[in-house]
Formats: sequence, C-alpha cells, structure tokens
Amino acid sequence: MAVAFTRLARNDSGIELAVSVLKQRFGDRCETGRAMREQHGHTTTWLTNEPPDAVVFATSTEDVSAVVEVCRTHKVPVIPFGVGTSLEGHVNAPSGGICIDFSRMDRVLEVREEDLTCTIEPGITRKRLNEELRDRGLFFPIDPGANATLGGMCATRASGTNAVRYGTMRDNVISLEAVMPDGSVITTASRAKKSSAGYDITRLLIGSEGTLGIITKITLKLAGIPEAISAAVCPFPSVDAACQATIATIQSGVPVARIELLDAMQMKAVNAYSGLTLAETPTLFLEFHGSEASVAADSEMVAGIAEDLGGGPFSFSTRAEERTKLWQARHDAYFAALGLRPGCIVFSTDVCVPISRLAECVAETRADLESLDLIGPMVGHVGDGNFHVLILMDPEDMDERGRAATFLSRLSERAIAMEGTCTGEHGIGQGKMPYLRKEVGGTVDVMRAIKTAIDPDNLFNPGKIFA
Amino acid sequence: MAVAFTRLARNDSGIELAVSVLKQRFGDRCETGRAMREQHGHTTTWLTNEPPDAVVFATSTEDVSAVVEVCRTHKVPVIPFGVGTSLEGHVNAPSGGICIDFSRMDRVLEVREEDLTCTIEPGITRKRLNEELRDRGLFFPIDPGANATLGGMCATRASGTNAVRYGTMRDNVISLEAVMPDGSVITTASRAKKSSAGYDITRLLIGSEGTLGIITKITLKLAGIPEAISAAVCPFPSVDAACQATIATIQSGVPVARIELLDAMQMKAVNAYSGLTLAETPTLFLEFHGSEASVAADSEMVAGIAEDLGGGPFSFSTRAEERTKLWQARHDAYFAALGLRPGCIVFSTDVCVPISRLAECVAETRADLESLDLIGPMVGHVGDGNFHVLILMDPEDMDERGRAATFLSRLSERAIAMEGTCTGEHGIGQGKMPYLRKEVGGTVDVMRAIKTAIDPDNLFNPGKIFA
Repeated sequence: MAVAFTRLARNDSGIELAVSVLKQRFGDRCETGRAMREQHGHTTTWLTNEPPDAVVFATSTEDVSAVVEVCRTHKVPVIPFGVGTSLEGHVNAPSGGICIDFSRMDRVLEVREEDLTCTIEPGITRKRLNEELRDRGLFFPIDPGANATLGGMCATRASGTNAVRYGTMRDNVISLEAVMPDGSVITTASRAKKSSAGYDITRLLIGSEGTLGIITKITLKLAGIPEAISAAVCPFPSVDAACQATIATIQSGVPVARIELLDAMQMKAVNAYSGLTLAETPTLFLEFHGSEASVAADSEMVAGIAEDLGGGPFSFSTRAEERTKLWQARHDAYFAALGLRPGCIVFSTDVCVPISRLAECVAETRADLESLDLIGPMVGHVGDGNFHVLILMDPEDMDERGRAATFLSRLSERAIAMEGTCTGEHGIGQGKMPYLRKEVGGTVDVMRAIKTAIDPDNLFNPGKIFA
Repeated sequence: MAVAFTRLARNDSGIELAVSVLKQRFGDRCETGRAMREQHGHTTTWLTNEPPDAVVFATSTEDVSAVVEVCRTHKVPVIPFGVGTSLEGHVNAPSGGICIDFSRMDRVLEVREEDLTCTIEPGITRKRLNEELRDRGLFFPIDPGANATLGGMCATRASGTNAVRYGTMRDNVISLEAVMPDGSVITTASRAKKSSAGYDITRLLIGSEGTLGIITKITLKLAGIPEAISAAVCPFPSVDAACQATIATIQSGVPVARIELLDAMQMKAVNAYSGLTLAETPTLFLEFHGSEASVAADSEMVAGIAEDLGGGPFSFSTRAEERTKLWQARHDAYFAALGLRPGCIVFSTDVCVPISRLAECVAETRADLESLDLIGPMVGHVGDGNFHVLILMDPEDMDERGRAATFLSRLSERAIAMEGTCTGEHGIGQGKMPYLRKEVGGTVDVMRAIKTAIDPDNLFNPGKIFA
C-alpha cells in the first residue's frame, strides 16, 4: 500500500477568500487578531508556534459544518481547538488555515442515570463535566491531569492516572457525532453499550487527532462515585522494587484505581517545593475505590505485597483530608519540577512499555539524562507501563535544546525497542511523527490509505501524525 | 461520501486457475471435496449454504500470504474460517473463492505472566487457550458461549457472559498481525498496554469480519484467575424487576462478573429438559470474582438490591459443585430450548439496547413472538442490555420461515428505534446487512470508503457487512 503524502503547501489566495467569507458569516465570532491566533497555535511544548489565519468560535454543529464547507470550497485547512493543553503540537497550523474553537460548545446535553451515560458537547472540560455530574452520584473517570476538553481527550486518545482501573478514552466513549471532510455529519454508533455492527468508526476517530473528522458531540460511559476511596503512599528502595510491587498488585487482581510512581529526583523536588520531609526514594501513590470494607481489604493486601518487596512504611487513609495530604506530593509534581530550575521552561514527554520492561526503561532513561546533563524528574502511570519525563530547559540555551532533542529521540526509540510505544497518551501530533513508522511499520500505510480515502485534499489538521 | 458497491460477480476462470495453482502449492492441504466445502460454508443460521471452491489448511503466516497472493493475481475472493460457530453467514462464499481454514494455526506462541499478556495463533479455540493458561493462574475472560476460535472472536468483535466486567474483544486485544489485501503483512500496534500512536488499526480490524485483513497472530490481555468465585441465582416477578435489579447493581459499582437473564419460557424449557423445579419466572444468574471476603460482600449487597425489587429467594455459593448446580439452568439453556420442539432447528439472533430500554424491548419482543405464533425463549447478557432470542423453527414449514423472517426484521428495527444496535455481539455478516444503514446512517459510507481504500477489488470476504 504505497500512498504518497507531500506537505500541504500554503494556499494564500484560498485562505484569504475563506477568511473573508467566514468574517461575513460569523462577524465577531471570527477573530484574526495576532494574539488570538498565536494563542490558538499555542502548544505547551518545545515546538515552534504556527498560528492559524483565523479563529472561529463555534456554538453548534451547524457552525462547524459551515466552516468545513467554506474550507472545502477554498481548499483551506481546518484545525479543531479545545483548550490548548495538547503536548505535541496538535493545534499548530503549519500550512495556515482556520481554527475552530470549541470553548462555546460546552454543554451537557443529557445525562442518563440508568444507563450510566451522558451526551455532551466537545468543548466542556473534564473538571466542569465532573462538577455537573457530582450531584447525581456519577463521575467520568478519565483524568489526564490537565483540565482538557473532552473533545481534545477523544482526539488524542487520552488517559492518565485512573486508566489502570477505568481504561482510556478508547474504552469510555460510546458514540461520536462528527463533521467529516466531505461535509457529511455522521453519528458513529448507537447508544448501546456494545455492538458488532460494522467497522468501529468510533475507535477510528478516537486518537485521530482531528485528521479524519471534527467531533461535535460525544456520548460517554460514566461510573458511580465510589462509596469509599482510600489513598496510600509507599516508598521503595529502588524503581525496580516499586515496579515489581506494581506487577504483583495487578496480578493479584486487586482493582487498584490509581498507582503512580514518582522517582527519587521528583521526590526531592517535591520536598523542596512543599517543605516536606518524605523519603527521597522512588515512591508509589495508590488509590482504591469501593466500599469501606473492600478498600480496607485492598489496601491491606497491597501493603503486604509492598512489604515483601522491601517497600514501606505503607501509609493509608480513607478520610478526605488525610488523603489529600498523602497525595500532595503527586498533585504538586508539575510545579515542584518547575521549582528545580527557576526561569526554565518545562515540557512533558511520554512513552509506554510492557510493564515487565518498565524498571529497565526508567533506569536507562535516567542514565541517559545524566549522560546528556539534563534535569528531568519522572512520574509514571506505572500500572500501565506509562511514564513521563518533565524536561527542564533554558529556552535560550541552544546547546541544551540540542541535547534535549537527542534525549527525546533516544527515549522514543528506547521504548519502541522494548516493544512499547513512543506515546502512551499524548499522541503523535508533530513531535512524535518521526517515530510512528519505526513503531508500527507498514501499518502507517494503512493509516495513510484511510486518511486519503476520507480526506483526499488533506485539509483536516494537516501536518500531523504522518511525517 | 458516495462509494458504490456492486455484488462481486463470480469469476469462474480466475477461480479455476487459482484452485489449480493452490493445489500445486499446498497438495493435500488444499481440499476441493464437496462435503469439505459445504462444511466450510456452514453457518448455524437460517441462511443458505454457499460453499467456497477450495479450502486451504494454513499452518503459517507465509501460507496465508501465499493464498492471498494467488487470489490477488487471479481476482478471487478469500474467506477466513475458524471453527464455524459464526451466526450470520460470515463464512459463506456468495461469489465463490478460497476458504483459509485456521484450525492448524492454533499454537500459543508466548505467555508473558508479568505483563498479563499472551501471543497466539488465530485458530486456537477459547477453551483450549484457557486450558493452556490454567497452570499459570491466568485466563482469557471473554466467553461467547460457543467454543469459537480467537481469530473468529476478533473478527466478529465477540463478547458474551463476562463482558459486563471484562469488556469485549474490543477491550482485550493489544495487537494483531494481519495479511492485508495488497499482500503486506502488518503488526497493528506495539505490546504496550495503551498507546496514542496514530489511528487505532487494531480496533478497525476487530469486528471487520475478514473484510479488511486476515488475522494471523493475536496479542491478548489476560486476567488472573480470581481467588474466589461466587455464583448466585434469583427469580423475579417480572422482566422489568430483573432489569431494575441489574441497573441498581451496576449503579452501585459492585464489579459483578456475569449477570444473565433467562425469561419465563426459557426457565420452563430448562425445568422440562433437566427435571428441575425452578420458579418459571424471569431469573437472574450472577457470578462474582474476587477474594473470599469481597465476593461475600458483593453477593450480600446484590441480594439486598434484589429483595428491594421483589426478587428472591437469592441463592448463592462459593463452592465449585454448588456453583455448577446453581448455574446448570443457564448452561443447559441452548439444549433445553431445543427440547421445547424436538425435530426443529434453532437459530440464535441478538440485539443490544441501552439498559434503560431493555425491559421494554424484551416485553415487546415477547408480544411480537406471540403475535407471529413463534416459539422463542430468551437469554440475556442483561448487564450490557444485550439479549438473544432462540428461534425454534420447522425447516420444512415455509410459512413459519416467513414469520421468522418478519420477526427478525422487526426485532432489529425495534432495537434500533430504542437507540440500540441490531447486533451486540454476533456481527452483521449476511443476515444483518439490511439494518446497518438504518442503525448508523452515513457512517456506512465512511466504512465503505475504508473498505474500498484497503481492498479496492473487494476480494476479502465479499458480500458481508455491506448490502
């Protein structure tokens, strides 16, 4: 399957026309000011800002269809934008084009308590959705850390701390409404919890990073807020011991809700930032969801596993205040990392490997950071074999930028060599494009064939995923 | 997106050539006897047998590639065959062609206990896989009832009784190797538990019914065999009460492993077949997985829910012998149904609706069976809103066949009207083709565009999914 792709050239005349038509249609909901455009090409990464030519604030599926129609007519790129928390340049506009901002499409359209599902617009953020669900005793469990929009979380196949128990976005979306490159509006599936009816177009759109369809409505699975939550913290003598404890926990079948690893450098950062005196060794942060009895039993079982592997003391609590205190180090991880080197920028990268290779991958990554003289604390969603390195970098130091680029490249290749992926949850975007073929080989050609079939003019978020 | 498909005409000369080349290459592993061919077009349905022209017994990916190459050259259809338990005509050969039989590609290639994963060939059956895993304390939880092959289960996105806790095939496959229509062999993903690296080609192949790629290797997620299993049975005054109890159980967060409904007619059949004296009212069969303490707590909680809704007595046990006895009625359901009308054939159909609509859908379906004078006991994977009707039919009675066809059509349309799907787990195959567009509208055109891009000559299992 040989499908050639060339980088989409900038279509200046088409863009000019499209912007003028959109300004007429949307008035002050179509903005072209420089600051606004730059903010919408903003990426919390090391990648260069490539702003779109205009930003349209959509309020309905019809608005999105109208923008797509104009862009189709004039052969102009369209880039969907949630809230800008993506990490690999997903919202950049390398060939220019029109950004659709979803912040005004943020309603909860329906909550069906009996079915444990809801239908929402894509611009609602994770935290606001959970606020709206709380009084009904329900929540949406996927928590990528950032307060991302659900549309963005679908587009990047996000996951985060709860994935070990509740799965990722892949597992928690029932159906999507999307505007396709040919202008059609499709609903990918019924509201049934499972289906064998044809190709899984829902899962095809999840993780497609806006390159196949623009999501305008989402039906999600929800979970009941557990009767009891218990939090626990346990330091270990080594990353290897912490990983072995994680493996044993998962093998035991204990339905742990979160199991996070902070490495020694990250623990040091947290102590300095928050004035704590925690052990500066690799530490697991755990959470259990269930009844009072089950979370107590689960915590006890994991405490035993940890002790057998040289970990401890194992501190845990079911009381809200103490839980917050126990997990403070985990919650503060990002700002504590920033504090390690004031004045620097931080960017986060992620890889994911089979859990049996995790300790080895973390150790080699630590050694590589040292050999490159880089500062990079690590935080892992260790139950899934997924970890992040927070790189602290002086943005003016070109040599350091070069070493960081070397590090990023070696990290992705290391993960792939260990039968893992160059990205567990951030997506390919622009930043990970060089590694996709190394990871999945000829499967990239199948992806390209699909992209070409559905978006033959390459107008939906061009310059992403495919190098 | 308008993609036209015409039914593939039979290519007699190409088939003749292909068969002769394959006979030369494969010797007695290429069979053309009538009985063998008919058995490989066999479907446990009401659909007409449409046998392939030859059956090749593959023993390796290279064999599969070789067959695909010959079929590509001569423009001849290829149909993969596991063990023939599919229910909607998936293995029929309406335009003739070559069947690839996977029964000799049935090895467990690797089990990785630390990762809770294994890699297998597609021809292994579910029961044999679990036998091979047992000594390691692991199992593969998806149980569609029939002793299907894992390749077939991938191809139809199968699920079954354990799906309410462990998910479906969609959720339990990490990566696939497949031979594609252009002859390339791809591996869809790394071995990482989760990934955001490009389009989800794994999920695209799962449920594609052999129309996009032929699966030659599968990496599965496994689960630890639970320390304790408890089984329970509880009769209810009505289907509605049983469904309400199911909804309340799921809302409570109890991680029930199985929750099955047998309707009154099915219970009557079981009593007659097995000489039991169970209440002939809608009855829930439950199973809980966990520790001794957790399954006791879970059972007690659900017993309370059932009682509040008028159900009972709630019988349960953790002892293997008693568990088998409690669940006997569920295990015997199929043969008990057969016993209702000796000499008849039985075929099973399935739909799935949002659980809030399940009681209504079951009631309307029962009324429709009565109005059409058909005998059809019902069994439901009620935690997912999925149920089966076992239609008992005299194969010689043309009038009854007509009424059964009317019933099937109304059942699918009823499920779709209730925002459900015409098939929760059997697949579209040939039998459900008329309903796919009614269910997902223009999404069918996206599916067709993908099919055309990947298999432009429509040689991979043609005449399935798309009407």
